[in-house]
Amino acid sequence: MTQTEIAIKMVLDRWIGSILNFNKHLNELSDEQLQREIATGKNRGIYLLGHLIAVHDDMLILLGIGEKLFPELNEPFIKEADRVAPQIPSASELRVMWVKHNEMLQEKFEKVTADEWFAKHTAVSEEDFLKEPHRNKLNIIITRTSHLQYHTGQLVLLK
Amino acid sequence: MTQTEIAIKMVLDRWIGSILNFNKHLNELSDEQLQREIATGKNRGIYLLGHLIAVHDDMLILLGIGEKLFPELNEPFIKEADRVAPQIPSASELRVMWVKHNEMLQEKFEKVTADEWFAKHTAVSEEDFLKEPHRNKLNIIITRTSHLQYHTGQLVLLK
Repeated sequence: MTQTEIAIKMVLDRWIGSILNFNKHLNELSDEQLQREIATGKNRGIYLLGHLIAVHDDMLILLGIGEKLFPELNEPFIKEADRVAPQIPSASELRVMWVKHNEMLQEKFEKVTADEWFAKHTAVSEEDFLKEPHRNKLNIIITRTSHLQYHTGQLVLLK
Repeated sequence: MTQTEIAIKMVLDRWIGSILNFNKHLNELSDEQLQREIATGKNRGIYLLGHLIAVHDDMLILLGIGEKLFPELNEPFIKEADRVAPQIPSASELRVMWVKHNEMLQEKFEKVTADEWFAKHTAVSEEDFLKEPHRNKLNIIITRTSHLQYHTGQLVLLK
């Protein structure tokens, strides 16, 4: 394995490990627990779940590997704060979407080659990318893993 | 820049970005706020701060780049749960330790070469490392960044 291949493996392993860790906690929470706020006056568990699906859906666009699976989640879970949207999917519906989304991402990630991971993501211009080659697709995985961990630290508080 | 150098930069940038983000939130919290629980019945902010310093201190050993700066934090902030140790440093003392620790780590990280980042960390055997070359020093940064983000998601709840 080259250092490049090892680096890609480490980043993807951390992503998968973070998803599995989130799943473990999510599966220990009932739909009723997801309706509760993670701390007084803060987001509800159900909002965090919808937010993560919506943010991960956006990764498809940034990585240029497909269309969003659930574009309808952008409005209630990214644009709007918790409790603003008049209607959102139920906790059990979001659980199904979450599992489906993870499987879809995993399949797509497996097809990305090493050179593609180091190619620019879709939100950076060719010109900027020449100066900042770290603004690549692999970096999207790195930053979104951080984001997932941040919210996992919140989800566990519902237990 | 080679792909290896880009990968190292991405991982270290994410580490530094996570530290700066934590600092931003920490500086917005008073010592009194740090005494509060992040959610009812959960860890206090002051415990999270001490825990992070202690975990980051352990990175020095794993990376083989020095001795712990604050070994006395291992007992109250890693081995023991919050409110178990009879006496812990004050919030203002921990803030000073945190800043000093970050500066020290940053200085040391800058001296690590690319090949050293891909060398084995101290908790894996030579034999296992041959089969699992991803168990290297750079991976310690990746996993500890995840850990830091997880607890940052909790610290912000004190605001």
